[in-house]
Amino acid sequence: MTMAKDMSRRRFVNSAISSAAISCMPMKGLFAGYAESVRTADPLRQQTGSVLTDSAAWKDQGIENLAKSPYSRLHNVPVRAVTIGSGFWGRRRDTNVTKSIPSMHDLLESNGRMINFRRLADKSKGDQRGPVFSDSDIYKWTEAVGFALQSGDRPEMRSMAEKFIDDVVAVQEPSGYLNTYYVDDRVSQRMLTQTQTTGHELYNIGHMLQGAIAYYRGTGDRKMLDAGIRFVNNFLLPDYGPAPKKPIVSGHPEIEMGLIELYRMTGDKRQLDLAAYILQGDDRLQLPKPRTIYMFSGTPFTSRTKLEGHAVRAMYACCGATDYYMETGDPAYWKTLSTLWNDMTGNKMYVTGGVGSRAAGEAFGDAYELPNYRAYGESCAAIGNMMWNWRMLAATGDAKFTDVIERALYNGINSGMSLDGTLYCYRNPLAFDPSNGDKIRNSWYDTTCCPPNLERTFASLPGYFYSTSGDGIYLHLYDNSELDWRLENGTALKVTQKTNYPWDGSAEIAVVPAQVSHFTFYLRIPGWSERTQVSVNGKAFTGTKPGEYLPIQRRWSPGDVIRLQMEMTPQMIQANPRLVDDTGRVAIQRGPLVYCLEELDQPNGVALTDVAVDLDQKAGAVFHSELRSDLLGGVHVLRHMGAVYDKTSSSDALYFRYKREPVKTRRVPLTFIPYYAWANRQATPMQVWTPVLKSSALNT
Amino acid sequence: MTMAKDMSRRRFVNSAISSAAISCMPMKGLFAGYAESVRTADPLRQQTGSVLTDSAAWKDQGIENLAKSPYSRLHNVPVRAVTIGSGFWGRRRDTNVTKSIPSMHDLLESNGRMINFRRLADKSKGDQRGPVFSDSDIYKWTEAVGFALQSGDRPEMRSMAEKFIDDVVAVQEPSGYLNTYYVDDRVSQRMLTQTQTTGHELYNIGHMLQGAIAYYRGTGDRKMLDAGIRFVNNFLLPDYGPAPKKPIVSGHPEIEMGLIELYRMTGDKRQLDLAAYILQGDDRLQLPKPRTIYMFSGTPFTSRTKLEGHAVRAMYACCGATDYYMETGDPAYWKTLSTLWNDMTGNKMYVTGGVGSRAAGEAFGDAYELPNYRAYGESCAAIGNMMWNWRMLAATGDAKFTDVIERALYNGINSGMSLDGTLYCYRNPLAFDPSNGDKIRNSWYDTTCCPPNLERTFASLPGYFYSTSGDGIYLHLYDNSELDWRLENGTALKVTQKTNYPWDGSAEIAVVPAQVSHFTFYLRIPGWSERTQVSVNGKAFTGTKPGEYLPIQRRWSPGDVIRLQMEMTPQMIQANPRLVDDTGRVAIQRGPLVYCLEELDQPNGVALTDVAVDLDQKAGAVFHSELRSDLLGGVHVLRHMGAVYDKTSSSDALYFRYKREPVKTRRVPLTFIPYYAWANRQATPMQVWTPVLKSSALNT
Repeated sequence: MTMAKDMSRRRFVNSAISSAAISCMPMKGLFAGYAESVRTADPLRQQTGSVLTDSAAWKDQGIENLAKSPYSRLHNVPVRAVTIGSGFWGRRRDTNVTKSIPSMHDLLESNGRMINFRRLADKSKGDQRGPVFSDSDIYKWTEAVGFALQSGDRPEMRSMAEKFIDDVVAVQEPSGYLNTYYVDDRVSQRMLTQTQTTGHELYNIGHMLQGAIAYYRGTGDRKMLDAGIRFVNNFLLPDYGPAPKKPIVSGHPEIEMGLIELYRMTGDKRQLDLAAYILQGDDRLQLPKPRTIYMFSGTPFTSRTKLEGHAVRAMYACCGATDYYMETGDPAYWKTLSTLWNDMTGNKMYVTGGVGSRAAGEAFGDAYELPNYRAYGESCAAIGNMMWNWRMLAATGDAKFTDVIERALYNGINSGMSLDGTLYCYRNPLAFDPSNGDKIRNSWYDTTCCPPNLERTFASLPGYFYSTSGDGIYLHLYDNSELDWRLENGTALKVTQKTNYPWDGSAEIAVVPAQVSHFTFYLRIPGWSERTQVSVNGKAFTGTKPGEYLPIQRRWSPGDVIRLQMEMTPQMIQANPRLVDDTGRVAIQRGPLVYCLEELDQPNGVALTDVAVDLDQKAGAVFHSELRSDLLGGVHVLRHMGAVYDKTSSSDALYFRYKREPVKTRRVPLTFIPYYAWANRQATPMQVWTPVLKSSALNT
Repeated sequence: MTMAKDMSRRRFVNSAISSAAISCMPMKGLFAGYAESVRTADPLRQQTGSVLTDSAAWKDQGIENLAKSPYSRLHNVPVRAVTIGSGFWGRRRDTNVTKSIPSMHDLLESNGRMINFRRLADKSKGDQRGPVFSDSDIYKWTEAVGFALQSGDRPEMRSMAEKFIDDVVAVQEPSGYLNTYYVDDRVSQRMLTQTQTTGHELYNIGHMLQGAIAYYRGTGDRKMLDAGIRFVNNFLLPDYGPAPKKPIVSGHPEIEMGLIELYRMTGDKRQLDLAAYILQGDDRLQLPKPRTIYMFSGTPFTSRTKLEGHAVRAMYACCGATDYYMETGDPAYWKTLSTLWNDMTGNKMYVTGGVGSRAAGEAFGDAYELPNYRAYGESCAAIGNMMWNWRMLAATGDAKFTDVIERALYNGINSGMSLDGTLYCYRNPLAFDPSNGDKIRNSWYDTTCCPPNLERTFASLPGYFYSTSGDGIYLHLYDNSELDWRLENGTALKVTQKTNYPWDGSAEIAVVPAQVSHFTFYLRIPGWSERTQVSVNGKAFTGTKPGEYLPIQRRWSPGDVIRLQMEMTPQMIQANPRLVDDTGRVAIQRGPLVYCLEELDQPNGVALTDVAVDLDQKAGAVFHSELRSDLLGGVHVLRHMGAVYDKTSSSDALYFRYKREPVKTRRVPLTFIPYYAWANRQATPMQVWTPVLKSSALNT
């Protein structure tokens, strides 16, 4: 399909951001100068590298510690600062900590992921098990525990993790090297170009660093973190990097994020520089082009012009590059990041926020290559998408990134874990037919990247609700919750949300500063909410714009209340006509939730392949929302009087002469459920994009 | 996608054949008894095997020699009996014999395909070159020459082939074994299960037999044929087959056709029995199921319920099974063949007659999995489809099979060779964007199965024009041509066609029996011609039915003329709504030709992705046919006043709220060319299925 000829004019759903805003540099913001003034250059710390600049402040650090990042406009609040109450994400969070994380612990054990470490300690327990990236499964699980513990101590979970960490650290070699695959006969393969490109050596360590940092921020326990620092400072930094050191390459990007977050804690600029070197690639390796495309690394990040290759690799590379941008403000990075973001949201993202449409190579397809049945849409890629947009949001404060975060989180990520928290999707297709024998949810995959990735994401969720900026606070996500934190000027601030979001569009937000205080409360107006009512203490606000943060700048006093009413009318979404798989079809969305049809919810004998959304009804296509507390853990379904063929299309010819007369149909009540909840009952066909019965537009 | 629930009710385009006809057994016909009476059982011949029962009659044998096949209703006429005059296929035939076959000879030489043989003779010339099936390239090319020589001697071409044959036969081993890959270090791998399943040993020999037979029928030269018989009779038959012999499997079906055609010449029933054994599979090999699915062999052919796995393998297996049916009348085979045919035409065939939609495994997709851009549609698979339908037609005399032959031949096969005869498609997609760097036509592929396959097909084309039956003659294909042959009762018969088909729908057919004779002239009425006028000597016939043979039963005299007028109005074709890739789109077909858009034919700046067929015009969607003798070797283009977006869709969002109002468009003249002629000029986007501007049917 044709590449966009005019990308700068592209915009994502409902985004009202002007085109100029997409490609321009983000404002450095008030905080930039502040950050630069705070950043101290301690020569001793720079040399030793293992000193943590903020070791006392581990409790104050969020998903990312951007407090001193000069080109970050927004700054994370600690995960522990937000308590999610009962509601949509509260339930997921509970399931995650009570079911998913503990059951994954047992699966990691039973599938040998920890035996890989222990056998190196006691030299007795059999062979290495699992693929080359098996160590990362442990690290991602540890990260999930680390985030979970940031929301409150869980001694049993903590002791599980401590045992893992002890066993991991016990087998770190004196050099700092740590990997359970490149041992025994494979020692000679360590750090070879071939091993680096396919062996996930640095990928494992990247996850180790992320896991160690999250665990440290959850507990103050720096045992694994120190092991990670030893790998970086003792093993990597002395010998690997630009000439005359030995070249390295990020076979699966991940280490970049790990190194930069480590740098944010240690202040050791060598760690940032190593990430920069990796993002630049090293000509000395002379990697074949198909490999550098697939890896999304090995060539200068700033030479990239489109998203291609392995989707998770590409997303993680973009995360690392955005982290690098926030530390350096390098305009070439921002230009590339903007180009890639426009390419993704304008050409290559599913309406669920999933990315990476091709099963072959788990890769990005060409522009508009977004098949539904054959969609890959790996859970990890949607998570990578969210992580990347979280960083882009931090850099800019632009709500268009939050729209993507929300889209991915509620749909293409949330679909990845079963409602009971024990089964996982690797693929997240937008249409499905179980008759092909495909089992979509499983408790274990030998390449088990997605399950712990989902767990760490859900465990970190409180950290995504708010950010601070030099001039105030940003509210990103709506759900029952309490923020207990402070403004950047030090004023303590509580914010309490009461809402039934995403089922209901109203929210009551109590803003309680410790003392009367002048600051801006940036209230996110979702891009899908075309008409949004906002009031403060009963006084209506005008001029809310979808897809922007509404800056409410005033003197805030305890007792102030923001009331918000978002538009929850179910919407029919159509796709760009170049997206040929969706021609003549609509997706249904209500609030942040994309809906789908499952055949078992439709009247008996009605095949999904024979139904259509009926646009011809006098009142227009109507979708009624209905609470079904008994269904799928409690969801709002959408009811619609659609149409179904009089006789099943399976009896029709494959091709026939075009008929001017409408095919005979009869009315049929259709029931749509939220996409995230699909495949939680018996196997049944599913589809997100449904044909429309009557259309008058070229592209339908 | 859902498998058909009610396949028996499926019908292909415009076919008016009753559903009963699809699953019932074909009539044995008048000839069946005749064949049985003729078939003699000569014990000597059965033992020696190398005696050709009809060695004197090589000139009388067609593509297949069905003269004695008891369950064949129709019987081939010799290729040499039909002379194609100037016109559509005349040009292709000329290009094939003057350009394609000679240039392929040189490419086979320069790519080492013959060195592989010669180095075994002189033990000096380097290593084996090319993949395991390289020998088959030579055999298929020899088959093309064999067919070409059946249309008239070409001494230069014949001497090229003789040289090849001499070199091939020279290295046959005393055991009868012949293969240039399993030599030297690889001798020990011969006939291992692994080698059979992936090594193409029997596949190569199947092509050797087909090539040798075609060459024998072209020249009377049985040198290669005798070598093939030695392989079968001396090497295979004594040691391989049911226990206590060693088991064999058809890793890539092909040998089945070869063995049965050989049996038809030798009468050696052991050859037929070996084919039956191979079609049945052998439990002793314990092949994994994914492999037997991919190979479409190794398990009983009669246990198959759908087309799956490698498309060429599946088509060749179906060819062999139909051949087997024609020899035995085994009803289980017919039942399976009917099921598979319904599955293909009802669920898995492109409108171009291409099959095998998946690139991964070059395989059949699921039902309705027929993507356009990502279509695989290997040229060889479309050829296999035509070969299979040729056999199904012979078994039944049912015109629904001829409709598929014509569809594949004029479109998905004809597209496989460039107009100048020197470049070939491996894939035949139905939409294409050259910006992805894909080069669609190439002179050589290291897996060069398609080019010589196309050459043998075009060279054999005269043999597809007519068949005889016990009661008369069948006309299958229209083009300027002369048949000089005889009825089965021995009466000499000439038939001359004058037509400008497929550009024009009229044909004048002079029927000239040597003497006044009562017989039935079965005149094919194409399935796409809803209104067809037929007259004999000026007297109109009524009751012509599309998709059937019109039986004109009368006393025919020299001077009798049939006049035929087929409906050539361009038609819009729509697809079954389950075929999601074609939702809201139409394909344009005129006569047997499927049309497409190439962007370079449209007004400057108009992108294919932005255009639509306009159904809203007062006179209905009008397509004007216009002869362009200067274009693409002379074609009729179709002109249509369609629509194009006011602004390019590339500037639109990927998803947006459904708009009830039509997108703004302006009128634009669109030019369609025949699909077979695409990609013969500079690289440019192409598409077969175009959106419609206004629709009123559920499935558009």
